[in-house]
Amino acid sequence: MFIGGEKYNPIQAETFDVINPATGELIETVSSASSDDVEKAIQSCADAFNPWSQKSYAERAAVLSEISTVLKEKEYLEKLAVTLTKEQGKPLTESRREIEGVIGVIDYFTGLSSSLHTDFFENKNNQSYSFTLKKPLGVCVSILPWNMPTLILSWQMIPALLTGNTCLVKPSSVCPLTILELAALFHQAGLPAGVFNVVTGSGEKIGSQLAASPAVRKISFTGSVDAGRSIGVEAAKYNKRVTLELGGSDAMIVCDDVDIRDCASKAVQTKFFNGGQACISPKRIYVFESVFDQFVQAVLESVSKIRLGNGLSEKTTMGPLSSAGGQKQMIEFVASAKAEGAKILAGGKIPEGDEFKNGYFFEPTVITNVPPSSGLLKEEVFGPIMVINPVSDLDEAIFEANHSDFGLGASIWTNDIRRAKRGFEELEAGIVWVNQHTKVLPELPFGGVKDSGFGRENGYESLNDYLETKTVVFKF
Amino acid sequence: MFIGGEKYNPIQAETFDVINPATGELIETVSSASSDDVEKAIQSCADAFNPWSQKSYAERAAVLSEISTVLKEKEYLEKLAVTLTKEQGKPLTESRREIEGVIGVIDYFTGLSSSLHTDFFENKNNQSYSFTLKKPLGVCVSILPWNMPTLILSWQMIPALLTGNTCLVKPSSVCPLTILELAALFHQAGLPAGVFNVVTGSGEKIGSQLAASPAVRKISFTGSVDAGRSIGVEAAKYNKRVTLELGGSDAMIVCDDVDIRDCASKAVQTKFFNGGQACISPKRIYVFESVFDQFVQAVLESVSKIRLGNGLSEKTTMGPLSSAGGQKQMIEFVASAKAEGAKILAGGKIPEGDEFKNGYFFEPTVITNVPPSSGLLKEEVFGPIMVINPVSDLDEAIFEANHSDFGLGASIWTNDIRRAKRGFEELEAGIVWVNQHTKVLPELPFGGVKDSGFGRENGYESLNDYLETKTVVFKF
Amino acid sequence: MFIGGEKYNPIQAETFDVINPATGELIETVSSASSDDVEKAIQSCADAFNPWSQKSYAERAAVLSEISTVLKEKEYLEKLAVTLTKEQGKPLTESRREIEGVIGVIDYFTGLSSSLHTDFFENKNNQSYSFTLKKPLGVCVSILPWNMPTLILSWQMIPALLTGNTCLVKPSSVCPLTILELAALFHQAGLPAGVFNVVTGSGEKIGSQLAASPAVRKISFTGSVDAGRSIGVEAAKYNKRVTLELGGSDAMIVCDDVDIRDCASKAVQTKFFNGGQACISPKRIYVFESVFDQFVQAVLESVSKIRLGNGLSEKTTMGPLSSAGGQKQMIEFVASAKAEGAKILAGGKIPEGDEFKNGYFFEPTVITNVPPSSGLLKEEVFGPIMVINPVSDLDEAIFEANHSDFGLGASIWTNDIRRAKRGFEELEAGIVWVNQHTKVLPELPFGGVKDSGFGRENGYESLNDYLETKTVVFKF
Amino acid sequence: MFIGGEKYNPIQAETFDVINPATGELIETVSSASSDDVEKAIQSCADAFNPWSQKSYAERAAVLSEISTVLKEKEYLEKLAVTLTKEQGKPLTESRREIEGVIGVIDYFTGLSSSLHTDFFENKNNQSYSFTLKKPLGVCVSILPWNMPTLILSWQMIPALLTGNTCLVKPSSVCPLTILELAALFHQAGLPAGVFNVVTGSGEKIGSQLAASPAVRKISFTGSVDAGRSIGVEAAKYNKRVTLELGGSDAMIVCDDVDIRDCASKAVQTKFFNGGQACISPKRIYVFESVFDQFVQAVLESVSKIRLGNGLSEKTTMGPLSSAGGQKQMIEFVASAKAEGAKILAGGKIPEGDEFKNGYFFEPTVITNVPPSSGLLKEEVFGPIMVINPVSDLDEAIFEANHSDFGLGASIWTNDIRRAKRGFEELEAGIVWVNQHTKVLPELPFGGVKDSGFGRENGYESLNDYLETKTVVFKF
Repeated sequence: MFIGGEKYNPIQAETFDVINPATGELIETVSSASSDDVEKAIQSCADAFNPWSQKSYAERAAVLSEISTVLKEKEYLEKLAVTLTKEQGKPLTESRREIEGVIGVIDYFTGLSSSLHTDFFENKNNQSYSFTLKKPLGVCVSILPWNMPTLILSWQMIPALLTGNTCLVKPSSVCPLTILELAALFHQAGLPAGVFNVVTGSGEKIGSQLAASPAVRKISFTGSVDAGRSIGVEAAKYNKRVTLELGGSDAMIVCDDVDIRDCASKAVQTKFFNGGQACISPKRIYVFESVFDQFVQAVLESVSKIRLGNGLSEKTTMGPLSSAGGQKQMIEFVASAKAEGAKILAGGKIPEGDEFKNGYFFEPTVITNVPPSSGLLKEEVFGPIMVINPVSDLDEAIFEANHSDFGLGASIWTNDIRRAKRGFEELEAGIVWVNQHTKVLPELPFGGVKDSGFGRENGYESLNDYLETKTVVFKF
Repeated sequence: MFIGGEKYNPIQAETFDVINPATGELIETVSSASSDDVEKAIQSCADAFNPWSQKSYAERAAVLSEISTVLKEKEYLEKLAVTLTKEQGKPLTESRREIEGVIGVIDYFTGLSSSLHTDFFENKNNQSYSFTLKKPLGVCVSILPWNMPTLILSWQMIPALLTGNTCLVKPSSVCPLTILELAALFHQAGLPAGVFNVVTGSGEKIGSQLAASPAVRKISFTGSVDAGRSIGVEAAKYNKRVTLELGGSDAMIVCDDVDIRDCASKAVQTKFFNGGQACISPKRIYVFESVFDQFVQAVLESVSKIRLGNGLSEKTTMGPLSSAGGQKQMIEFVASAKAEGAKILAGGKIPEGDEFKNGYFFEPTVITNVPPSSGLLKEEVFGPIMVINPVSDLDEAIFEANHSDFGLGASIWTNDIRRAKRGFEELEAGIVWVNQHTKVLPELPFGGVKDSGFGRENGYESLNDYLETKTVVFKF
Repeated sequence: MFIGGEKYNPIQAETFDVINPATGELIETVSSASSDDVEKAIQSCADAFNPWSQKSYAERAAVLSEISTVLKEKEYLEKLAVTLTKEQGKPLTESRREIEGVIGVIDYFTGLSSSLHTDFFENKNNQSYSFTLKKPLGVCVSILPWNMPTLILSWQMIPALLTGNTCLVKPSSVCPLTILELAALFHQAGLPAGVFNVVTGSGEKIGSQLAASPAVRKISFTGSVDAGRSIGVEAAKYNKRVTLELGGSDAMIVCDDVDIRDCASKAVQTKFFNGGQACISPKRIYVFESVFDQFVQAVLESVSKIRLGNGLSEKTTMGPLSSAGGQKQMIEFVASAKAEGAKILAGGKIPEGDEFKNGYFFEPTVITNVPPSSGLLKEEVFGPIMVINPVSDLDEAIFEANHSDFGLGASIWTNDIRRAKRGFEELEAGIVWVNQHTKVLPELPFGGVKDSGFGRENGYESLNDYLETKTVVFKF
Repeated sequence: MFIGGEKYNPIQAETFDVINPATGELIETVSSASSDDVEKAIQSCADAFNPWSQKSYAERAAVLSEISTVLKEKEYLEKLAVTLTKEQGKPLTESRREIEGVIGVIDYFTGLSSSLHTDFFENKNNQSYSFTLKKPLGVCVSILPWNMPTLILSWQMIPALLTGNTCLVKPSSVCPLTILELAALFHQAGLPAGVFNVVTGSGEKIGSQLAASPAVRKISFTGSVDAGRSIGVEAAKYNKRVTLELGGSDAMIVCDDVDIRDCASKAVQTKFFNGGQACISPKRIYVFESVFDQFVQAVLESVSKIRLGNGLSEKTTMGPLSSAGGQKQMIEFVASAKAEGAKILAGGKIPEGDEFKNGYFFEPTVITNVPPSSGLLKEEVFGPIMVINPVSDLDEAIFEANHSDFGLGASIWTNDIRRAKRGFEELEAGIVWVNQHTKVLPELPFGGVKDSGFGRENGYESLNDYLETKTVVFKF
């Protein structure tokens, strides 16, 4: 844990193990927060709120800029990337990119402080001048997933910090170490003690306690639909705000008027990025029949070049799943798919070889002709299985794409203006790409519709989620 | 009820009585919606959503403008005002002003359609152009109170309609008639059938059903803290949005540097407006000691001019409470205050005389020196009791003002810049007035902090509460 | 003239004749303003400024809305349309559409008043709160052209009026009557006397006087490049603002992937709209070689359906040129084109027949294969001559399109995303349409680059052109 | 000169001397640009425009951030401050503060790049989507004064650079050296060659050439009214944009309800800042009669503590005038004031002593009871003469304050809300402070009304002065 500006590991605490998913080895044993520890962390955040919220935007932005400067130093960036790869499994290049993403988010939000202002109204009928003030909420909580822990932390907590809130972070028990390292770096760069605390341990127990604490004013959660909904209900009991990001099963539609090889190669890049463990990645690919075979062929070629291995090796382009549970799910998905008559064209199994035997590896897998009722299409597949189905035309493609409880992202690949328009108008998703997928820019609102979530992260409007509007009327 | 563009009163429906609070007479018997009726109303709204949401802003604004034009016609305005006075009790002048307020809200939101646009982003690093679309949510529900039914309806439903949503309204069983009349007028002015439906009956039963219906995407509720919170929890289970306005106990601080007579007169005007049955009215008045006696004296003079009576008489300046329950609460509040040692300087009882004996009247009441523990200061007093306490300085005044679970409005009366600044910075409220109270302008965000609510109504930003952001990225 | 809320025609004034361009008949004789008259009009505007600028936005918007309401009455709309057709020549349908356009502009700007607010800044480092106020400038001048007099008047003067300025209008001597009628209607609808004055007479003389008057704070001018520049220079001497719209020679690029017949028909509609007398119309059409013949053929078919005649006849789809000078220019353009080897495929001459002999008619003309050096491509052709040239590809099309001193509008017709992108990025114009031309929406900034002008009209930002920013800093 | 990324000093160039105003010594001899040199500099900027404007905002912001980082290094900041003090005369503390101000401006504008986006419009009636693009103009020119050369440079050129324009700077011949050093540092920090060029020499000659060059698209000028107006006229001939800051004669109103000693001390600080050589400083102080003597007394005490001397000495709190001409003007102003019957209560002459004899020093001077017709009140006094007049009330104070051709800044010192309101509403100035003066924040629009200028600098809206709006309409 990290509380009040320093590491906090009570002697009698229960602990849990953090395992390297590439080797099965124990990396570190981490304390599980007791209910008292959580209370202590909340109190520390609450105490730090007043001085932090009283600082000017310029002062807070200066601290965040200093954090960005520190992270840009090769030494720190590399150290964080190695820890992230060790506990999460992703290749070092992806770990570095994730930390660079964090830097981008900090720089983006820090910059926003230049343009912050509120509204002023002259009302001559009421002979009054009015204006709004925006005040920070208090303690904001971030409950993190394990797939992109540092990037998602930055989406949730950088705007919270900039606007003068204090933050309490609960990382996933799969990947708490990079977050703990980050917390130490944040304070080394000048963040005052108590402004950013980390508690580790069971999500369910700690989550409930946080949701019920009156001092906590906002909860940002990224994770499963069920857990998210229950956080939402708890928060509502106490009049708290929530932002929920609850996963996705993005459709990608490939029309017949694009460069198929290029499109296939980008589909492979984005789908197998982070071993397929991403909320936004093309999980259901619908390809126009006339180019279906060509597309599948190009995908298979691309997939054959993926180098599975321990992420710490610079040659590796895809690492293991982050946990044994994830590996098991992939095995079950493939088994069901086979039973349902789908075609397994690549992968589909645990790779052989010594280097794979203790980790949670699974081969990059390509499955086609999956029936609509299959779990591969109805559930969120969080691993390296790409599903490709043919469709006869755009109508069918859009129908299938929207035939899902999820609505996070979707993409359409075409050069035709009218098809693109149908795509962005008709696809039911919080974000629709044309000729791209997965790329998230800090200036763009990110979040889902339907079961995929509640609220948006990123973009300048997201600052309002961490601010309360106060209206002031002056009558003369 | 009003469903699908016409009155709907099933023959076997249970019913409830609407009583004139000035006379105790039955005005009309109204159907109670069965669970099937509610379902029918939701379905009607859901069916109307697609065509309504596909219209342009200009087309929808034209319909709303036509509604405003109809309401401005003296004939309709007067008819609505009379109904409102009959079922709610407020003087005709206040009823007229309420309907004029509705017109102001319609004109304000209709005007907003001129300036609506979303954001466009050029990202040269990603070689992409992106933009946001804002899409209506679907069926929006409004659960109304009885104190200002038509005005609050307009705050909740006009932005919903403008942005392309369809609306389902559940008026209070105390005052459903004006809302039903309005629904008919809306459709007469051109609102398509099903876009605006009204169901009448028990709040608790219908509220739960609405909160649980998947077709309902947003619930706006104005009422008690407990009911609001339980609506919030139900909504969270189904990932719905809510806006809650849950009452207030506004403090008013009177410094020693203002025109005391003028200030006292405005305090009386705003406090006894609507018989004190308003979320925002100066319920707890804190006056600097040095001007306390002068202020109280001026208040008493002003109060002595209030003419209690049936609101239908043009001479009346204050009507009855809207229900027998309200009258009973006032009696209890006064009894407790007496027991607590407070001074009853005016009113404090049911008025005598034939014209008052069947209605729910209560005299305009002024109580001073109320102890902090009194229910008059801790609970929301929804009736004609003004509480005035002396304070030694601004520190004490702000401390007492903030010593409440509520945080809707507050005011400070002073001509000193530094006192004004302390007031608007330190008073814990969603809206702080300087030298004014109660006045709500449609361009200003309205809503409370602490137990007073969740979210804001009015102002251009409120449109976002009825819209979902969709991000579109074009990659070239 | 119209000054101080009433018609003003001094007895000894010089006068000029307004001629019906379809018949050559005198419609009315109008006074030429003397220098004293102009001074009187300025003074009237200056006197009216203070009370008008002190009104609230809501009050001014109410007056403008009433103007819109009056214009919507069939009686007034029709009367204005007939006058416009008589003095300008355009078909009645186009006159009506122009007045409807004026109504649209009024409604748009009136609506904007709902969303007006300025900025409020909290600067904790400086311990200050700051805000901006926006104040109207004073007397604003509009110097109008004769092609769309009422619409351009509305672009220039409605935002001026809404923001609290008073207006002085100098209509073209070709078409002053509709403007004078409008002035009377504006006042009938409630505009206070002096807020909107009209002076008639010589543009050069009156323009210089207006530009030199210290009371005039802004000049909006639509007309020729030379006149505009000289207005700009005069205004700069006196620190005045200007907006200049100085004509255009819009290119239209037709790619090979669109519906050629549909595209040709729209080209004819927009090019021959208002007899080709429009700043924005496709004056230089570049068509991909492979579809060139097909396009020209379709254009000729469409052109053959144009019915030339007196605009007062409902059958007429194109009227005369507005002046004898315009007719003469067309004759010269055609003569030069012939000499330069271009092909005249339709029209090219004054039509025969009694109904044409006294008016300033010219046949709808189609010319192809015009050399780049031709005046038809280098100058602004303000009449019914359509020029169509083949191009080998998009590179050539864009090169030719940009080979002009003008930069008002341009269009590209394609369904290919990448071509569309090249079009909107590379075409040097203030407005680029994809698959449309000429359509101007009040919410979109309108104005040119290069020699086509200075500043933008329409859109919410245009209000700032009529407002001065005042910054206020409160230090505590 | 500095052209194309390097120093440029043609061998045969004419030259001019830069003199240290504290010692009269020659600091350096600088080349005067010939007409060919100016052309070469323009061409270099024009050549650099395309690659610079094609970079993303993030890339350009990164270069500007690097410049800020370099300037923050003590070594560079100190070197620039010493050069500035040497050529301009101001104390080192003020020179350092000026460079820190430049850093603040860079950080402010760099931050703005986070929030940049344009507008997107959906118009269902026209079945179109539209958006705006904002494109840089091309070569932007800055013609600088000598009083705050680097800060004003940053106001004019940092937004120009951020938005993708290239810059050509003409510093004052009194103070060109710091600008030349800055240019070198900018390029050392990564600004590409040609993006920022400096030409030195005669303002009149070079100014006209720049105003007449077609490649120059905008001119920012800070200087005298006459020079500014003539730049404006030249620019108008070529359709260029201008921003003009043309000096001020700010009034400061001291009411009787403030802390007089504190107010007097701040008046002295701001008035004698930079030796009184500032556009915005309290040049005309109007004090309520009842506190006039007390105020003057407190001013005299404060003034007696000013330490005149060479700015390079850390003890100095006020340096010499920047030029002999400035010194001569002060002598003349004092002589006239005496003749007009004003009272010289402090200073009023060249100080005695060896250290002052070769420089352009003038004692800090306090003059009261100056008649309204005096040049001290009608002209811009650019030196250390403070004028204080008594007024009987706020009406008189505002009347006198507004009795000037200038309208840059003004201040009112009061704690009364209603007086403050009268001040900010009625004072005719581009910026009005309450209880402060002179402080300029980069987020606030800065610029004057009346003869004080045209346009505003600073604030996010100022970016639009360097961008051209392009409207794009997509029709489906």
